[in-house]
Amino acid sequence: MKNIYIIGVGLIGGSFALDIRQNHPNAKFFGIDHDDLHLDDALDLKLIDAKATYEDLKNADLVILSIPVDVGILEVPKILEAISDTTLVMDVGSTKLPICKIVENHPRRRNFLATHPIAGTEFSGPKAAIHKLYKNKTIIICEVEKTAFKLQEKALKLFSDIGMRIRYMHPDAHDKHIAYVSHLSHISSFMLGKTVIEKEKNERDIFDMAGSGFASTVRLAKSSPAMWTPIFKQNKDNVLETLEEYIHNLTHFKEMMQRDDYEAIFSEMQNTNHIKDILNGIE
Amino acid sequence: MKNIYIIGVGLIGGSFALDIRQNHPNAKFFGIDHDDLHLDDALDLKLIDAKATYEDLKNADLVILSIPVDVGILEVPKILEAISDTTLVMDVGSTKLPICKIVENHPRRRNFLATHPIAGTEFSGPKAAIHKLYKNKTIIICEVEKTAFKLQEKALKLFSDIGMRIRYMHPDAHDKHIAYVSHLSHISSFMLGKTVIEKEKNERDIFDMAGSGFASTVRLAKSSPAMWTPIFKQNKDNVLETLEEYIHNLTHFKEMMQRDDYEAIFSEMQNTNHIKDILNGIE
Repeated sequence: MKNIYIIGVGLIGGSFALDIRQNHPNAKFFGIDHDDLHLDDALDLKLIDAKATYEDLKNADLVILSIPVDVGILEVPKILEAISDTTLVMDVGSTKLPICKIVENHPRRRNFLATHPIAGTEFSGPKAAIHKLYKNKTIIICEVEKTAFKLQEKALKLFSDIGMRIRYMHPDAHDKHIAYVSHLSHISSFMLGKTVIEKEKNERDIFDMAGSGFASTVRLAKSSPAMWTPIFKQNKDNVLETLEEYIHNLTHFKEMMQRDDYEAIFSEMQNTNHIKDILNGIE
Repeated sequence: MKNIYIIGVGLIGGSFALDIRQNHPNAKFFGIDHDDLHLDDALDLKLIDAKATYEDLKNADLVILSIPVDVGILEVPKILEAISDTTLVMDVGSTKLPICKIVENHPRRRNFLATHPIAGTEFSGPKAAIHKLYKNKTIIICEVEKTAFKLQEKALKLFSDIGMRIRYMHPDAHDKHIAYVSHLSHISSFMLGKTVIEKEKNERDIFDMAGSGFASTVRLAKSSPAMWTPIFKQNKDNVLETLEEYIHNLTHFKEMMQRDDYEAIFSEMQNTNHIKDILNGIE
């Protein structure tokens, strides 16, 4: 791979550039971004070697599409028009069904690979890009059979070279499960942050009384609204389902407290302690 | 201080022993615990030098009471009976009003100091004790004026020697604010863990799709039910208030999604991003 184009040079795209460069020291990295300041930062940080436009995409071996998911579905057909027959275009968004639908009947469908790397931080933009973000992380690939065999092979080698575990899923199943293990966490965190901020006008009090437990629970409330609003929109039905179940469980907890049923609360917490075993693998 | 007694040699009591020992190399540390295996572990880990009983408390310079808050209010009068006139007894529980009420008219009230160190992890037991847990952490002290001046002085020196920031609060205010910045986080985390576990019977799926964001948000769901059930019970009214506001905010978020009001969702998240500034100080 010689020419790699990153569309959206933020945390996710920028970190891919950093990691891929390790294994492809002679590759040239180009950045495309609607925000020219991001491109300048990406140049300064050596995430990319030059700025580019869609007209240059015909020279691309690899295009990584790492922009908010609402813009992603608008841009992907234009990108597929602009590339050559041998270019691999992969998107890395947090929803997979809408983009798979959009490209479904595109003449260049076989140039496209739908992925979701389970990696990131609560920060965004090129300055948030970090080395080895993807090491030992999972990448979910959807509808792999719809991508040309040679391009699949190229992508899989790239992921395994940067240390990722590969998992295959149907886009439907991806969007359903990811609502539970990622999208809901963001809402729970944002609303927890909101509840505390609303109450504690005097922030000095929060600051002094809050410990690492609180910080951990509201960490995701620092996330970018521009990235997350379209994710919730595209995955509305699944997210609403998780949110209803979460509210139901919280209401049940409240009712146990109201009727002073602390035995039930104890066993509720004890059953959930089981999360330890699940988390062991991901921390 | 020569003789220091830790009642409840878990994460909190054990970590105090480790930190205080640095500044008092000649002090002897004694452990009292209803679980003899904890005492054995504490001896092995050199948290304590010997096991002890309430009868020995007459020799204590300092007693740290670090047991679940429901047992704390039952034990504190007995402890105050057992000590000498110059002993300082401090409790470190997560609720402050109930224990302050219990000791209110005790003849040894001036030997007692009500504190809440804002420090800990999601783990418990003597093996969870760690060095420097308290460095740069806040300790909240309630009703300081009710403790004998000499003993106040002793306690404040001890806290500042191990690097803690001291804050004074009324027990009422403590219990109200801590419900927001600590107790509610635990419920939100436990119920998030429950929601995901219930849904994802096939845990392999969770494990592979869950990232560090999810891990961070459900970290507190590993916490000890034996410690947390009595905290919720003792702080019932405040915790219920926070829980109602949290459920209200989540329901509002759900309704915004149902009516596709993504502009409102965006601005809701943007307003809460402000949590960044608040968290800067505690991470």
